[in-house]
Amino acid sequence: MRIVVDAMGSDRHPQPDVEGAVQAAREHGIEIVLVGRKDMVEPELANHDLSGLAISLVHASQVIEMKEHPAAAAKSKKDSSMVVGMRMLKQGQVDAFVSAGNSGGVLAVALLYLGRIKGVKRPALSTVFPTRDNLCFVLDVGANADCRPEYLLQFAMMGSVYAERVLGIADPRVAIVSNGEEEGKGNALVQQTYPLLKASGLNFVGNAEGKDIPTGLADVIVTDGFTGNVIAKLSEGVAGFMLDIIKEEIRSRPMATVGALLARSAFEEVRRRLDYREYGGAPLLGVDGTVIVAHGRSDSLAIKNAIRVAKHAVEQDTVNAIRHGITQSLAASSVE
Amino acid sequence: MRIVVDAMGSDRHPQPDVEGAVQAAREHGIEIVLVGRKDMVEPELANHDLSGLAISLVHASQVIEMKEHPAAAAKSKKDSSMVVGMRMLKQGQVDAFVSAGNSGGVLAVALLYLGRIKGVKRPALSTVFPTRDNLCFVLDVGANADCRPEYLLQFAMMGSVYAERVLGIADPRVAIVSNGEEEGKGNALVQQTYPLLKASGLNFVGNAEGKDIPTGLADVIVTDGFTGNVIAKLSEGVAGFMLDIIKEEIRSRPMATVGALLARSAFEEVRRRLDYREYGGAPLLGVDGTVIVAHGRSDSLAIKNAIRVAKHAVEQDTVNAIRHGITQSLAASSVE
Repeated sequence: MRIVVDAMGSDRHPQPDVEGAVQAAREHGIEIVLVGRKDMVEPELANHDLSGLAISLVHASQVIEMKEHPAAAAKSKKDSSMVVGMRMLKQGQVDAFVSAGNSGGVLAVALLYLGRIKGVKRPALSTVFPTRDNLCFVLDVGANADCRPEYLLQFAMMGSVYAERVLGIADPRVAIVSNGEEEGKGNALVQQTYPLLKASGLNFVGNAEGKDIPTGLADVIVTDGFTGNVIAKLSEGVAGFMLDIIKEEIRSRPMATVGALLARSAFEEVRRRLDYREYGGAPLLGVDGTVIVAHGRSDSLAIKNAIRVAKHAVEQDTVNAIRHGITQSLAASSVE
Repeated sequence: MRIVVDAMGSDRHPQPDVEGAVQAAREHGIEIVLVGRKDMVEPELANHDLSGLAISLVHASQVIEMKEHPAAAAKSKKDSSMVVGMRMLKQGQVDAFVSAGNSGGVLAVALLYLGRIKGVKRPALSTVFPTRDNLCFVLDVGANADCRPEYLLQFAMMGSVYAERVLGIADPRVAIVSNGEEEGKGNALVQQTYPLLKASGLNFVGNAEGKDIPTGLADVIVTDGFTGNVIAKLSEGVAGFMLDIIKEEIRSRPMATVGALLARSAFEEVRRRLDYREYGGAPLLGVDGTVIVAHGRSDSLAIKNAIRVAKHAVEQDTVNAIRHGITQSLAASSVE
């Protein structure tokens, strides 16, 4: 298996991107193609022992930055690491594409150079959320700020396929984010989507309120990209806020040093349980190829794990499973 | 000052509602009218020493339950505690209405029996959020699942008046929830509202991403009632989840007992900082009277504080300040 890794993706590129790729090549025996500026990536590669590893470098002179307008950058920066890498995926030279760069940029480049699976109305960005005892898969977290019911229905189907195949959850429970538990609650979009999900044949368990997301009420949670983006970023914000104020309070107490010492390993474990780096990355679903987006703050562990996720998605033939699901649902709706 | 308190509001009514009312009467010298079922409220009142307190009881035979459909219940249950209390406010017999009941019910009853301030398009439910160093005021958190830009503009104005007068924040910074920091980010609603807020004369500071809410980026945060509801409930869910897993980890460690003991007072302080009971309640803004909604889980402390919030809102003449603001903005827009 060959995976192309955007060496210019993460906030601190190319160090974590290159190191994570080297580790993935070693641990998972994957063939890696790094794509990025030769003058930056080569010195980084020189820090590693590459003996026995299948790592190559393809030069790309440009970088799509975090702050850039995604669609404009995707069009204008034809020699960016994202565009060069995505074209290799399109041409079948590699099996998957991994980037920790501007997620809107990955989306725009994928739409332009890779295209959608036939029948998919909109691709969706996703994320993996830690819950009480396991995890849940949330989409869309930002690709489509305004959605239509048909999009959400497809997100549910694609999320379900991914949760089953890659996350290993049998018959995943699907919920839709709403402002109340009961059927009938929701904005117009949710109210129109509910009956479609109910009739979809998916394991639809109904509405999920905000408070239900961390409890593990569902395995796949669908929502529009605006709400999903707020959910993903708010959860991160509240979790960080909680860790900060708890530490602050422990430190301000008598015997603070002892308390802090005792609590330290607990905090480390909590951070590990919440850590996006353990999941590595999440897929851009609905495009015609395996595309994994990692967090901009990724370190080498996160990159390595994102590459592992990509490998797993390829092995499980996720893209073709989604293609099959979409074809089936299109056939079913044309029969009606 | 006379405040009517729904004795049948909280999940464990009438105990916390009555006890909180008695405490508010004693501590804040407020005249209280309890409204609810005589057979339930009288025995509860008998548990308290009422000497020197101005507490009366008005019988109402019905209760709007948490699970009821708000609009239908508001119409059909004419002798419910909410309807009877709201009518007293409408008729000027009391200065404010406080309930820990079904918030949709309070909204529906207020719309039906109290009405909106002239010019207000939609009333908004609000909540007070703890932030790093202070608090922020978020609205709408559930009254209007689907919004128009004009509604959000009015929410910003009403929230600004309330934050300044009742929360004591000078020239409050106003932000709108979005899926990106930069101007131009957002769903269609946010993109259309942004220029209205920019031109509003309010202290508009731009978009707030989910992660910015707990940091105190703004004092007043406006959003549609769907997203606001998800934000309020998700924050509560994630905060509870964090406390749970941190405690779990501390308990599972060597010297767990010592660690737990040392951490206990810190956790108590964290809980206090996050505690909705300290704020007591938040207003339903835009209706023609002072209406404070408390959390369904309220205990007597939360009820007492909700009554204190009502007193403060009345003293600060919040309703007339909003009326004045709406009249001004209508005059300004008719000049254009």
